[in-house]
Amino acid sequence: MSKILKGIGASDGVAIAAAYSLEEPDLTIGQTSVEEGQEDREVENFKGAFNQSKVEITKIRNHAEEAVGPEHAAIFDAHLLVLDDPEFLGPIEDGIRNDKKSAAQSLVDTRDQFVAIFEGMDNEYMKERAADIKDVSKRVLAHILGKELPDPSNIDKPVVIVAEDLTPSDTAQLDKKFVKGFVTNIGGRTSHSAIMSRSLEIPAVVGTKEITEVVKVGDQIIVDGSAGDVIVEPSDKEIKAYEEKAAKVEEEKAELQKLVDEPSKSMDGIEVELAANIGTPDDLEGVTSNGAEGIGLYRTEFLYMGRNEIPSEEEQYEAYKKVLEGMDGKPVVVRTLDVGGDKELPYLDLPKEMNPFLGFRAVRMTLDNEELFRTQLRALLRASAHGNLKIMFPMIATIDEFNRAKALLIDEKEKLVEKGTDVKEDIEVGIMIEIPSAAIIADQFAKVVDFFSIGTNDLIQYTMAADRMNEAVSYLYQPYHPALLRLIQLVINAAHKEGKWAGMCGEMAGDEKAIPLLLGLGLDEFSMSASSVLKARKQISGLKKTDMEKLALSAVDCAETEEVLALVEEYTNRA
Amino acid sequence: MSKILKGIGASDGVAIAAAYSLEEPDLTIGQTSVEEGQEDREVENFKGAFNQSKVEITKIRNHAEEAVGPEHAAIFDAHLLVLDDPEFLGPIEDGIRNDKKSAAQSLVDTRDQFVAIFEGMDNEYMKERAADIKDVSKRVLAHILGKELPDPSNIDKPVVIVAEDLTPSDTAQLDKKFVKGFVTNIGGRTSHSAIMSRSLEIPAVVGTKEITEVVKVGDQIIVDGSAGDVIVEPSDKEIKAYEEKAAKVEEEKAELQKLVDEPSKSMDGIEVELAANIGTPDDLEGVTSNGAEGIGLYRTEFLYMGRNEIPSEEEQYEAYKKVLEGMDGKPVVVRTLDVGGDKELPYLDLPKEMNPFLGFRAVRMTLDNEELFRTQLRALLRASAHGNLKIMFPMIATIDEFNRAKALLIDEKEKLVEKGTDVKEDIEVGIMIEIPSAAIIADQFAKVVDFFSIGTNDLIQYTMAADRMNEAVSYLYQPYHPALLRLIQLVINAAHKEGKWAGMCGEMAGDEKAIPLLLGLGLDEFSMSASSVLKARKQISGLKKTDMEKLALSAVDCAETEEVLALVEEYTNRA
Repeated sequence: MSKILKGIGASDGVAIAAAYSLEEPDLTIGQTSVEEGQEDREVENFKGAFNQSKVEITKIRNHAEEAVGPEHAAIFDAHLLVLDDPEFLGPIEDGIRNDKKSAAQSLVDTRDQFVAIFEGMDNEYMKERAADIKDVSKRVLAHILGKELPDPSNIDKPVVIVAEDLTPSDTAQLDKKFVKGFVTNIGGRTSHSAIMSRSLEIPAVVGTKEITEVVKVGDQIIVDGSAGDVIVEPSDKEIKAYEEKAAKVEEEKAELQKLVDEPSKSMDGIEVELAANIGTPDDLEGVTSNGAEGIGLYRTEFLYMGRNEIPSEEEQYEAYKKVLEGMDGKPVVVRTLDVGGDKELPYLDLPKEMNPFLGFRAVRMTLDNEELFRTQLRALLRASAHGNLKIMFPMIATIDEFNRAKALLIDEKEKLVEKGTDVKEDIEVGIMIEIPSAAIIADQFAKVVDFFSIGTNDLIQYTMAADRMNEAVSYLYQPYHPALLRLIQLVINAAHKEGKWAGMCGEMAGDEKAIPLLLGLGLDEFSMSASSVLKARKQISGLKKTDMEKLALSAVDCAETEEVLALVEEYTNRA
Repeated sequence: MSKILKGIGASDGVAIAAAYSLEEPDLTIGQTSVEEGQEDREVENFKGAFNQSKVEITKIRNHAEEAVGPEHAAIFDAHLLVLDDPEFLGPIEDGIRNDKKSAAQSLVDTRDQFVAIFEGMDNEYMKERAADIKDVSKRVLAHILGKELPDPSNIDKPVVIVAEDLTPSDTAQLDKKFVKGFVTNIGGRTSHSAIMSRSLEIPAVVGTKEITEVVKVGDQIIVDGSAGDVIVEPSDKEIKAYEEKAAKVEEEKAELQKLVDEPSKSMDGIEVELAANIGTPDDLEGVTSNGAEGIGLYRTEFLYMGRNEIPSEEEQYEAYKKVLEGMDGKPVVVRTLDVGGDKELPYLDLPKEMNPFLGFRAVRMTLDNEELFRTQLRALLRASAHGNLKIMFPMIATIDEFNRAKALLIDEKEKLVEKGTDVKEDIEVGIMIEIPSAAIIADQFAKVVDFFSIGTNDLIQYTMAADRMNEAVSYLYQPYHPALLRLIQLVINAAHKEGKWAGMCGEMAGDEKAIPLLLGLGLDEFSMSASSVLKARKQISGLKKTDMEKLALSAVDCAETEEVLALVEEYTNRA
């Protein structure tokens, strides 16, 4: 009889295949000490294992770059750095030579020391470094012990991978031709493996708690990534049902593909802009193939992350130019550097904070690091000649902050123009609305900015005073809460009153339940992951804006999220 | 010639006296090891030093309790615990017996170990434990070395104390008869010594950076705690000027004292309620002597802090009853347990959070620890028979949270009534407004609650998305920002529309610049530190509410804090 496991749907779609376990070899250390006189040989052994690991990780890195883009490959650059780090290698060699440990033992001891240090830091970035060291050390240890780690890139028939969790190396080696889906014991929607599964568009369910216990290698398994269901050893009837569901998913995809060149219009003919959020120029392909009408959020921090120094003006210019040219005159909203909070840059000495989400982030930091900020602004201004650039400042709380940021921009622009550099004349300059104060005085901001883009992830967490990464208060992360809808309404109305436009670039903009509300509230631009654009276009084409306006007016008068959701249901089913 | 130092005014008032330095003896360790066979003697030496320290600290503790109340004495209970802690004593004795260290060396090594562990924790409570251990160890070390720590309680003529910083033991030993003021190199307005100076009502300036360098013992020194100025070796003219200022301060105090039984009324006859914030029943004396018309915030967490277990229902009942009886029928707003964030309880296993201010705090925690919550509610309900109790839930973000909290209260009430326990019939139940969402949908909340009390400290930090404890973003802690004023306006109007009242219990309620705005916005109850009540009463008596209404209407239409402050100046000078 089949067994159904409930997990968290991490990536949509249905997969049916045999289970493949990423079981690991036994890496127990046999010999813990080195014999007198054998130290040189043992050091050689350990250096050889490092080199083999380096070769393998480089291969995995290149495979990842090809399969999912350089932004996901960056983690392996971090791994390679560990393998080149004398601070890590030194103590291992010392342990062999001075403490007469075996290579394996010395590696494990040094690993544990580093992991303890990094994990002890109250800093997500540093904790990730601990994961890097573990991942790398496992590979080196396997080589020292003469064993092989499972190699997902060797899979040559359709499988669903089951594992405790997938490491970045694991996910990067997955070949979409054969790996039809994956299921893990742990993780949530925002865990690394979940994010990768969406990038790879492989159906995935995470957090099933016990998939590795329940399933045997070779068992038939169905993954329903939309529902978060996993069926182990399904009946013929279940297989048939899910095959039909899979076919339907494919059909829908094909259907949606027809909308790629259509405008985004409501049933009663009101047009909106459906744009995409991107992190790097490599994301452009998905933007185009999904028919996005612009880029509503270009997160420039990826340019600054996973490296050891600030990117040069030239490097930034090239990246911005590539995106602007790639979008061929369509609007591209570039957000200036947004780090701090949960995103750190090792080469900037940012303060360790008790509440980083309420700390020295984004424009607060760049206004205080003027040279860094001016360099980015210059790169943007120079790139502006190559397309339809709009510049947006993140985490603006007060008019004064906006004025200061804009003054720097104007100053740099004047200097460039004086030097004869080609700069677009009428670059729109706007702000993210992600802090309650900015939303509340949006009428004042609307007089001085050219546009708003509502960043819902942060706006929700500040409005509800609930860290969106914190499980204990995740019940307060309520995108449909009337308080939030009222702020959105304030922002949109304020923009329109001054003849400006209002967009949204948070996750909410692509959310099926939010779209009717946002359309009704009068949102002009919806910016979402590229893969959601066609679905949103289809949904909007089925909604009457006039009806959604009534829905929105009722929704902002609700007392609780549940009432709002009931209204959405009522209005959209009625339509 | 006199020299003027600028610091941070920590406690108002003017003091003129000779400087007295809390210089410490040289505590360098001479002998680091113990001679063979002398271990027993050395252990005795160290135990003797512990016992002497215990006696001294007990004295200091009792002196502190008498001088400033048991809530400030609690820290010495913590010190005494350290001296009784086998986890601390054990390793010291081991160090002497096994590692042949001298008592002094073993103490210092053990101290350093404990301090490193506690300071390494990213937890304010634990960091304070490190300070405790340092403070206690210094005293023990002095005794081991046969030296004496400076003893401020021996001072027998008027002095101004200058020091790098004052430890809790130092401040607790200060005798107001002779210690006329103090000045430190380090610290800010919320450092321990600053808070103590306000409790003791001793003029103080902290954070002068170099007072210990600039001043010699016996130098004449003027402390202006209101301006944050310190004048070293003042001229006769300066002394005269400050004597006049001091006399004027005294005169004003006497003048204010006349208002103690007066109502709090604006110039045009509109009455408001001026209440006090308290932490323990011991604060009642200040409430009465300052003529507060009620208690607008009783922070019950003090009952739960500085101890090793949850206070029993009986203990809570006694505390609440004492306050209610002490207030003799005047309103007492009790806030249910508000811990988490920066306030931790060692005996509750609260999660370690990346952003504690956006975390599992206050009602979020108590709703999840139902027995703990119900115990407090029962204690409150039973105490309600003894006065005019109002109950307030902190950190409410959604109506659902309020409904759940109120349901528990009603359930406990019904059970008590069934048992025949005397419970006040019409206890008002309200909420703190400190989360933007609650302010934004105050109209919805006003239908279900009996009152609002605006908690500005948190409301500001969430509205501006800026941790109020974080220096790097302290520029965003703007109590007069139009966004905040608009939220306050929303809340007050929503309350009044439903016939409910709105108060404020954040620091802003007692702020001279805020009072005109709050009066104009229609605030019904202002709850502040007891020592601010008379000043506020005087200020309000000089303001016309009708004018302040115009001020408030203009202020909410401002774009920035500076404009608001200019308006306040304009309107209050005009009056």
